[in-house]
Amino acid sequence: MDARTLEQKVQWLIDIEAIKDLMSRYCHGIDKQDEQGFMNLWAPDATYELPRGTGSGIAGINELLHKVWREVPRCHHHITNPLITVEQDEASACTDVIYYRQTADGLLQLLSGTYAMRFRRSDGAWKIRHLTFSAFDTRSPAFTENNAR
Amino acid sequence: MDARTLEQKVQWLIDIEAIKDLMSRYCHGIDKQDEQGFMNLWAPDATYELPRGTGSGIAGINELLHKVWREVPRCHHHITNPLITVEQDEASACTDVIYYRQTADGLLQLLSGTYAMRFRRSDGAWKIRHLTFSAFDTRSPAFTENNAR
Amino acid sequence: MDARTLEQKVQWLIDIEAIKDLMSRYCHGIDKQDEQGFMNLWAPDATYELPRGTGSGIAGINELLHKVWREVPRCHHHITNPLITVEQDEASACTDVIYYRQTADGLLQLLSGTYAMRFRRSDGAWKIRHLTFSAFDTRSPAFTENNAR
Repeated sequence: MDARTLEQKVQWLIDIEAIKDLMSRYCHGIDKQDEQGFMNLWAPDATYELPRGTGSGIAGINELLHKVWREVPRCHHHITNPLITVEQDEASACTDVIYYRQTADGLLQLLSGTYAMRFRRSDGAWKIRHLTFSAFDTRSPAFTENNAR
Repeated sequence: MDARTLEQKVQWLIDIEAIKDLMSRYCHGIDKQDEQGFMNLWAPDATYELPRGTGSGIAGINELLHKVWREVPRCHHHITNPLITVEQDEASACTDVIYYRQTADGLLQLLSGTYAMRFRRSDGAWKIRHLTFSAFDTRSPAFTENNAR
Repeated sequence: MDARTLEQKVQWLIDIEAIKDLMSRYCHGIDKQDEQGFMNLWAPDATYELPRGTGSGIAGINELLHKVWREVPRCHHHITNPLITVEQDEASACTDVIYYRQTADGLLQLLSGTYAMRFRRSDGAWKIRHLTFSAFDTRSPAFTENNAR
């Protein structure tokens, strides 16, 4: 049924793992404000599409990243439910995300959404070529002022 | 220590990945109301057990699915913490889930729970044979009316 | 580019999967109050660091676990975004977590944070050597008294 050689199967598993790792790095990079870690994830001709703007190419993506950090000074993303397809040196994924965000005006929200991502392998490394986010709902639980212990 | 052949190990890894993929498809199917995608996940003799009802066989599962969509017109599930066991053509998983739901009366909730799942491989494809959901707690954060930006 | 043998690649994939499984077991163990399941995860010389205390060695970790269960009688953890590095019999991971908790005084919270973990393989089994939790934010959505259906 599965006509792939053992080597091909192992490479597919390694590719799936590499793409999951890339998605984790996306979250850690944007949330922990690791600019270099985040920028390393993208292919030179990538497009990054968010409701608050679109960045094309490394300079455009970097500009959008800084806009996000200005407008959303704190965020914490949790990617879930990956569906990944690998075709040679191209791959795509659909995933969900649940995320906390604090906007510049101090509003706190806990929201969910979906990412559509496309990837390309170049010189053996997978990079993001295209990432589009779709919000699931704009309503969030209401946060208390401060309930820390 | 690990007496499996290389081929068996690779097949086990592919099986684990296939079952994770099936769990992701469960979430995407029910949340994005992809009826065909959702129904394709089930074995013909499967049982689907939720607090709001039990569906047996394809017709019963489809009936329960439509009951869910009537009573919970919007939901967003995020499956986490999979523990997967594969034994030849049978497998089982215990996973957690955190989910947003909007019930038909407009109530919004963010809840968590646990799935117990059993799977069977037939003609090379893994399908869900049994899925039971247990709620963790019935209390949810309170949502604001509308805090969209 | 990838100088590893096929056997080494497969072992790496199995190790990654074993470490993900260990992280899932951490959540299931602490949340479902499975004491034996939880204690089995740790190396004899492990250190477990939480904001509410540090446990060293099996006895110290067990003491901290019971302190957690006294002070946080209900919790539900969802681990996400794993970044895993394996080096022979040592491994490390950085992951995020979103978690629900009910403290002993009845306060309900939904919070997020990050785990830094180190692992060691001994007699073929991966165990946690070090786990440190860092809270992301102390603010949580406010829960309603009871909105169960």
